[in-house]
Amino acid sequence: MNVAQPQQPKNILYAQAGGVTAVINASAAAVLETIQQHPNVFGKTYAAINGIKGVLEEDLVDLSDIDDATIDQLKYQPGAAFQACRFDLDPLEHNPEQYQRVLEVFKTYDIGYFLYNGGNGSMVTAQKVADYCCENGHPVICVGVAKTVDNDLDISHCSPGFGSAAKYVATSFIEATLDVMSMYQTSTKFYIMEAMGRNTGWLTIAAGLVKEVIPDAPLIVLPAECKFNKQAFLDKVDALVASKGFCVCAVSEGLMDENGEYISIATIEHTHERDYIQLGGVGSTLAHLVGQHLNSKTHYSVPDYCQRSASHLVSETDWQIAYQAGKASVMAAIKGEHGVLPIVKVTSEAPFTFEFINVPLIEVANLEKTVPKHFLTEDGMDVTQQAIDYLKPLVQGEKSAPFKNGLPDITPIKFKTVKPKMQQFIAIK
Amino acid sequence: MNVAQPQQPKNILYAQAGGVTAVINASAAAVLETIQQHPNVFGKTYAAINGIKGVLEEDLVDLSDIDDATIDQLKYQPGAAFQACRFDLDPLEHNPEQYQRVLEVFKTYDIGYFLYNGGNGSMVTAQKVADYCCENGHPVICVGVAKTVDNDLDISHCSPGFGSAAKYVATSFIEATLDVMSMYQTSTKFYIMEAMGRNTGWLTIAAGLVKEVIPDAPLIVLPAECKFNKQAFLDKVDALVASKGFCVCAVSEGLMDENGEYISIATIEHTHERDYIQLGGVGSTLAHLVGQHLNSKTHYSVPDYCQRSASHLVSETDWQIAYQAGKASVMAAIKGEHGVLPIVKVTSEAPFTFEFINVPLIEVANLEKTVPKHFLTEDGMDVTQQAIDYLKPLVQGEKSAPFKNGLPDITPIKFKTVKPKMQQFIAIK
Repeated sequence: MNVAQPQQPKNILYAQAGGVTAVINASAAAVLETIQQHPNVFGKTYAAINGIKGVLEEDLVDLSDIDDATIDQLKYQPGAAFQACRFDLDPLEHNPEQYQRVLEVFKTYDIGYFLYNGGNGSMVTAQKVADYCCENGHPVICVGVAKTVDNDLDISHCSPGFGSAAKYVATSFIEATLDVMSMYQTSTKFYIMEAMGRNTGWLTIAAGLVKEVIPDAPLIVLPAECKFNKQAFLDKVDALVASKGFCVCAVSEGLMDENGEYISIATIEHTHERDYIQLGGVGSTLAHLVGQHLNSKTHYSVPDYCQRSASHLVSETDWQIAYQAGKASVMAAIKGEHGVLPIVKVTSEAPFTFEFINVPLIEVANLEKTVPKHFLTEDGMDVTQQAIDYLKPLVQGEKSAPFKNGLPDITPIKFKTVKPKMQQFIAIK
Repeated sequence: MNVAQPQQPKNILYAQAGGVTAVINASAAAVLETIQQHPNVFGKTYAAINGIKGVLEEDLVDLSDIDDATIDQLKYQPGAAFQACRFDLDPLEHNPEQYQRVLEVFKTYDIGYFLYNGGNGSMVTAQKVADYCCENGHPVICVGVAKTVDNDLDISHCSPGFGSAAKYVATSFIEATLDVMSMYQTSTKFYIMEAMGRNTGWLTIAAGLVKEVIPDAPLIVLPAECKFNKQAFLDKVDALVASKGFCVCAVSEGLMDENGEYISIATIEHTHERDYIQLGGVGSTLAHLVGQHLNSKTHYSVPDYCQRSASHLVSETDWQIAYQAGKASVMAAIKGEHGVLPIVKVTSEAPFTFEFINVPLIEVANLEKTVPKHFLTEDGMDVTQQAIDYLKPLVQGEKSAPFKNGLPDITPIKFKTVKPKMQQFIAIK
């Protein structure tokens, strides 16, 4: 990491990218509040609309005079208040125009600091942009702000955004389990919830927290890390239904079979009338499979975006982590630490305390933290006490959005973009 | 309705049947508290486990000495604390043994009052049982306790349980809409939530409350009452995506096409590789349809049981309605009103106040209240202000289950069943 402090107050640009979380705007609020506390370091404060796309298109908001009430609103707002893009720059050699354009924008707006709140892939691109600016006579300090409900950020104890999504999955799963256990004798004997996670099962194992409330819940977890074995799964369903009368299951959306094929499009069933092929949703596929196997009613839930946008069920701990992530990024920028990502380091297990330490972005880039083996039982279909011990601190405390007239008071904040000074640039042709 | 007061304290039996709600146990708590306030009327208090199935099988719990702390726990417990059956008695002429058995159980336990917390179909059966008892020398007063998230109970202003499910759907839909509106430029342009409702679209129109928080939300509702017209739907999606950039949609699980076929199994797609047929879930079917039509990423949620079990997102108003439903049933029993169902009558629109009035069960039996035409726009795909005005009072206030260690404190209550006094009877062979 380079340490290069600009000589005089420079402007700062913040942007959001990639899948949102329930607390990404708590990071934004922290960024803004921390900037305001350092008027000697920072000049104007901008946010780009739609991440790096907004930088290219000069779609910027001037937040220099943002008031406290708006910052307070940000603290409870789900989604990305400044819009988050699923768009990355091309490699420099393929598309130098993009990098030149960012340099021009940064020069025009005198940007000396660039904070990118996104997945580590996007942040590495942001760093490349900043490096390009430095090499071309316009020094920019680039710092990442971590966020992802997937919890797959490596080295960091956890990812900002995961705790709230985990709390949502666990709470919903516990409530649905109470539903099933009150009706299984004459109705549904198998229930499954499909959690987010293409490659990792972190949100799936969060359902394991059901054991904290219903210790003898007949649970199966199917995290993305474990290849699906149909026979072993059905055997476990049979055993649990035989002993407890029903079974509840959580599965990762990205579950694959032993040949590496996604389960969600893997089931083809030949009946005398026609062929059935599941289009989408491992939850419905497995619910159907078990329904046929048990000859029983089954049900499935797909929370989808609800699990990463639940402003009404935010973990206080996760909120604090997201807030501190934002604050740490500004502090790193002040120290001139270019190309770093503040990550979570646990300083005490009980009580649970943490701090942020800065690691070079490149050290975490393109890595993916998977659920470790010791968090799962030998058959890969249940969580261990170690998994519970890891998850519990992250879901502690409630910090819901305020309610107004019976609904969450989260009307989107409208920001006015600055009048363009430059030639138009279309990012996506 | 007959009025026939037993001569001396008689025992009372309470049971739960049919799909659960987040507040059904608030009704149970009210039943128990109101009984305790009338020791001169009631002798012992029993609950049957699994509704009428538990009556047949003598699977009973003695609640005469239930303590306040347990009643308080009931007030926040989702699911059916005494288990709810999807099981009904056969018609008397087909299976008189069942009726004789219930009579024997009622005689053995000296039951003079029978409160059945269920759908109106189940409650009519309960009344028939009570009538049979009366005709055979053992007078029993039978009173219904209404509950259903579907809101399809006729005559009643609304159904206990609906307000909380509506609050859940509306809150989740609002949060997901914020998610989509923050990413649609480079990601999902169409999002759909599948709400419960085989024949009625009450929970689907609850998503219309999004307009209270995001007035210009590009919304489509597809309630079960309106037959699905694919072309009109895709035209509306196109128009909304053209003007707002994205579209959010709520659909009833039981949506049918113009030929009366369920959409969820209606889509067969022939590709060059194979035929795709959607197994379950109108939400995923329509998400796939729009995805192909727009050539864009789409997403769908299926809250399923979560929408009827969300103890963490209970409407205070709905909780009060459920509590009063339980109380009103006991008061009706005390007055000797056999064969009635207490239903909700609004006494003031602003402020919203209500009372319970007793109607003969037979007057609401087998009726189904559908969403009225004036709650929907002419094209059937949006809600009117009248729908919003109807929904708003029902979702007011928050009465969440308490949280403990980051999770809802709703560990299921274990009730000890009484030692059987009678010969075994197997209800379901």
